[in-house]
Amino acid sequence: MTFSEEKYSDEPTRVQQLVKDFFSDQSGADVGADGLPVTLALGADAKDDCAVYDIGAPVTLVVGSDYIRGPKFILYEMGLLSNFDIGYYLAAANISDVAAMGATPIGLLSVIRYPHELDDAGFQDVVAGVHQACTDFGTLNVGGDIGNAERLILSGTALGICPPGKTLKRSGARPGDLLCVTGTCGLLGAAVAYFPKRDSFTHTLPADVEKELLDSWRKPRARVAEGRVLAQKSFATSCQDTSDGLKATIEQIMHASGVGFRIDERNVPVAPAVRMVAELMKVEPLALTMSASSDFQLTFTVAPDDVSACRAEFTDLGLDFHVIGEATEERGARGLDGERSRPLPGVAWKHQKSDISLLASEPSDP
Amino acid sequence: MTFSEEKYSDEPTRVQQLVKDFFSDQSGADVGADGLPVTLALGADAKDDCAVYDIGAPVTLVVGSDYIRGPKFILYEMGLLSNFDIGYYLAAANISDVAAMGATPIGLLSVIRYPHELDDAGFQDVVAGVHQACTDFGTLNVGGDIGNAERLILSGTALGICPPGKTLKRSGARPGDLLCVTGTCGLLGAAVAYFPKRDSFTHTLPADVEKELLDSWRKPRARVAEGRVLAQKSFATSCQDTSDGLKATIEQIMHASGVGFRIDERNVPVAPAVRMVAELMKVEPLALTMSASSDFQLTFTVAPDDVSACRAEFTDLGLDFHVIGEATEERGARGLDGERSRPLPGVAWKHQKSDISLLASEPSDP
Repeated sequence: MTFSEEKYSDEPTRVQQLVKDFFSDQSGADVGADGLPVTLALGADAKDDCAVYDIGAPVTLVVGSDYIRGPKFILYEMGLLSNFDIGYYLAAANISDVAAMGATPIGLLSVIRYPHELDDAGFQDVVAGVHQACTDFGTLNVGGDIGNAERLILSGTALGICPPGKTLKRSGARPGDLLCVTGTCGLLGAAVAYFPKRDSFTHTLPADVEKELLDSWRKPRARVAEGRVLAQKSFATSCQDTSDGLKATIEQIMHASGVGFRIDERNVPVAPAVRMVAELMKVEPLALTMSASSDFQLTFTVAPDDVSACRAEFTDLGLDFHVIGEATEERGARGLDGERSRPLPGVAWKHQKSDISLLASEPSDP
Repeated sequence: MTFSEEKYSDEPTRVQQLVKDFFSDQSGADVGADGLPVTLALGADAKDDCAVYDIGAPVTLVVGSDYIRGPKFILYEMGLLSNFDIGYYLAAANISDVAAMGATPIGLLSVIRYPHELDDAGFQDVVAGVHQACTDFGTLNVGGDIGNAERLILSGTALGICPPGKTLKRSGARPGDLLCVTGTCGLLGAAVAYFPKRDSFTHTLPADVEKELLDSWRKPRARVAEGRVLAQKSFATSCQDTSDGLKATIEQIMHASGVGFRIDERNVPVAPAVRMVAELMKVEPLALTMSASSDFQLTFTVAPDDVSACRAEFTDLGLDFHVIGEATEERGARGLDGERSRPLPGVAWKHQKSDISLLASEPSDP
């Protein structure tokens, strides 16, 4: 089976084909001026989470922008997420991109455009959510753009810093490296699969499980501390956040690094709440775990010799990770369930077409 | 007459009241980490065009985000602006904010979310417009966020660099400083006033004038070279771009600096095309010149002793500016038409309520 980018990514591939000429040969460009030394270390051609600037010693600057569907989140439309929640999510999603590069956030610019229908309290709640997330992740909301629009529109830009040469990329995984993830995935996807169809299932879930599912959206955690350890101690050979879901993340690291992955399915942590939703949906719990879900975990690779030291550092900081597979020379990502090898279960986030409901009808085939 | 912020700014004032507690005490904050020296020189509390970071010597970083109405521009909806044009505008508007700080752009992040209805060629045209503007203004489109949405959504973030201590702020104008503008204002506003009502006027304008009006939208120019001279030679005591229109810009510098302005109305350059549209509208040409219009000129103040040297530098670079007034101890902005003093004509951009059509019915009163 030949691995092709088209197979796992429809709309991003189309986009890349259309615009690639505009973004070629950026990385490494001298963008300084007036004697100020600035190099664009990673540009759009690097296809990473953020652009990276070397701005004189001793600081590397990382910057990335993320638009947030916010008001179009189904759980927001259902009234299960508040204006505060989508503001919080806006900041967390952007800061997660900085964390995935191993950088420490130094600021967030937030674009909050709102319609006449959003009253003062609602608008204030959005900003309060952004502010709370910035506080929780140790940074400041340093500006952006606030004004009216036809509907609520949320976007952001996060800035971070890193010692030179320490940023984490998607492209450094080598065959033999161990694949790791900082925690369970799929909770946000499970919440989206559960609540809109809640009344059509055979039964509803206990209140504490429902709360856990909603809390995954209300208080997503950008893994800033984890990213910093992985970068500054040079543990990780590649890293990306799981904002498109675990399967998509694995496939993107695989593609960027030019390796394959063999996943030990038994080692992929599955949250009990995800398992419960999967049972209601009559789908495989692992498939729901690996499908589109913006959990903002970090997925990364570590050389086998470094795993113990990395574990010790994480433990010292009260952090955790799971080894879930191994990078291979052979391309493609395969799941290993005992002796049986198979295509990875789950539905990767494909922007235009993917839908968690495809889980039941469309078996994935990378 | 007491000057009050509320009088010239409804929605921004409301916004500031609602969120000011979230943004207090940012400027000057130490936001470094891990021994990396980073200070947030200007944060959201500074209410300037961009945030400013001091990231170790010898570079100051400037960064700002602007959402662009693009697809809601009336001239785009009328088919007079193309997808390329609104992409170009997106980049120009963001780079203009960096130019207004006196910084040299080092990159643009662009958020381009598009609907199913936008075909490949249309999407590619948006990106091509962004790319062309970046090229024209000497920088790179280093990334951002591309994906689908319910409608075309455009936003951007521009980054720039400046020697430490050289950034231009809105807040430095002193009584006696001369008020200057880099060129004519009001062309974009005149285009919006003209084309939607074109067939209801007594006559239409010559083809070359109509082209000039449309070109003001198609190829807006961020004043990067002008901003750099003003900053690096320390000529300007304050500076802002006219993205909200000349009147609004004057009022914002006035408010930030704690001064007033006396405008010599006869020295404000009025473009012939603006004059022609004003005649059709039966409004004062100067009012149309000063009203809401994103011309991206720079408005700045210079100490009287520095005007000659500033003029010489501009001339050497093939650049121009006009002295249009003087900063005063007394607050408020007044127009001086010969001996007659009056409130500044024109309608400042007020986000929610302002409309160029108010020109005819609602005399401005600062």
